[in-house]
Amino acid sequence: MQRITIIGTGLIGTSVALALRKASTETEILGFDANPAESAAALALGSIHSALPTEQAALESAALSNVVVLAVPVFAILDWMPRLAAVMKPGQLVTDTGSTKLQITESAQQLFTADTAAFLPGHPMAGKESGGAALAEASLFRGAMWLFTSTSPETPASSAWRALVAAFGCRTMDLDAARHDTLCAWVSHMPQMVSTAISALLLDEFGDDPALTAIGGRALREMTRLGASPYSMWRDVALSNTEPLAATLHAVEQRITHLRENLRTPELREEFRKANTFRAAPNAPKPPTA
Amino acid sequence: MQRITIIGTGLIGTSVALALRKASTETEILGFDANPAESAAALALGSIHSALPTEQAALESAALSNVVVLAVPVFAILDWMPRLAAVMKPGQLVTDTGSTKLQITESAQQLFTADTAAFLPGHPMAGKESGGAALAEASLFRGAMWLFTSTSPETPASSAWRALVAAFGCRTMDLDAARHDTLCAWVSHMPQMVSTAISALLLDEFGDDPALTAIGGRALREMTRLGASPYSMWRDVALSNTEPLAATLHAVEQRITHLRENLRTPELREEFRKANTFRAAPNAPKPPTA
Repeated sequence: MQRITIIGTGLIGTSVALALRKASTETEILGFDANPAESAAALALGSIHSALPTEQAALESAALSNVVVLAVPVFAILDWMPRLAAVMKPGQLVTDTGSTKLQITESAQQLFTADTAAFLPGHPMAGKESGGAALAEASLFRGAMWLFTSTSPETPASSAWRALVAAFGCRTMDLDAARHDTLCAWVSHMPQMVSTAISALLLDEFGDDPALTAIGGRALREMTRLGASPYSMWRDVALSNTEPLAATLHAVEQRITHLRENLRTPELREEFRKANTFRAAPNAPKPPTA
Repeated sequence: MQRITIIGTGLIGTSVALALRKASTETEILGFDANPAESAAALALGSIHSALPTEQAALESAALSNVVVLAVPVFAILDWMPRLAAVMKPGQLVTDTGSTKLQITESAQQLFTADTAAFLPGHPMAGKESGGAALAEASLFRGAMWLFTSTSPETPASSAWRALVAAFGCRTMDLDAARHDTLCAWVSHMPQMVSTAISALLLDEFGDDPALTAIGGRALREMTRLGASPYSMWRDVALSNTEPLAATLHAVEQRITHLRENLRTPELREEFRKANTFRAAPNAPKPPTA
């Protein structure tokens, strides 16, 4: 690849740029961010070769790129898609890193046709509770799952992008966009919202009482870690995956209620047995083997 | 100290023994466990010098010890307390590691008087999601908080025990037993029950479908880690701290409901703002500095 343009040089976009630099020394990487401080930080980190100053410059760079990576929140991706479809040609590829895929995949089917660039919807299951180029790492995707929800045939450019993702150290999986959104509601969006709700509740209950955190250990830390996550990204998840997310949260509420009502009954044993079984399963969530 | 008897050589009791061996090479450490395999494992790890074969042997060893450490679930602690009070004398100390403190502290006030050994109620805020001597570590308590809820004057033996706890690398705090139980409901018992509820729910929803865990990353792993915790210990927490725990779970249920009902309203921004504030506070839960 000769040129890749990354739109959105926050944590994910800048980490993609760093991983690309490791995987391919020949490719020129250009980056745009609506916040010039972010693209300046990405440039200072040596992730991108040039920072594009304006949206117009980003579109001009996109028109000359093999691949454009949209690494912005979901509704910003949806905004960029028609603009890119208008200036990019067959042989070129647009891909994205958005957290929800149904709306993006449906939009791609309408906008990206045989007469335009191809579009490969993607979603790396990687991140941190805080965003920004400054936290980016080339190794962010190592061992992570990178999901694809494509509905169109592979092209040479999409195959080349998949090879790069594999070179980042990712496992990959292709799945239906609706199933993606339901699964991600369970494994990612629900944990985020539960952590946000508990963190906000603890602020209301304890303010800056130091006793809480002096006493709290790993359980409190893990349960509230995602409380630091930015609203700007998660608002788009909440708006673009409302029904599946609301269904998982409702199920969680009911399950906590059930456990609370059984703190003094034998049913508590059954809940612990099921939880133990979930964690003991051969494919239970384990820390990545380093 | 010449002799310490540890009753319960699971994860906590055996870790205490290992930490004692590091802190004091002169002390003989004897251990009893209702499961002989656990005391045999503790002996094989070099944590205790001898494994006591029977409850009677444990009581005889207790009568000859400077300190007895009760490292068993809360109701087992409550069962051992009158038996130890009957055989131990002024100058000796009984202490414990129970997760809830109100019932234990009230019982200690009645059973341990000027005519008996002293009792120092304690609670190390350390552990793992799985129990057992095999997982014990001398460093388990390093940087952790060890809480005390004493209502009686210090004795030479209780001061010596506090010095050993400090030598384990612990911070310590003294607080009222009722406040202890309320704070621990928030920082420890609620996260446990939320994790158990979510893990049990995921088992019911997904069974052994590999997609869930293939896709899930750190968020799912952290949110369900405590799902592996043993019922035997947590049943006693649920029974001995029911009201504070039920109150925190009810508050969490209501907060998740509130967030779910506001996935598409500006109130979601406010919840994220509060959660961000909680995590950004100077005393927010941070990983231990290694």
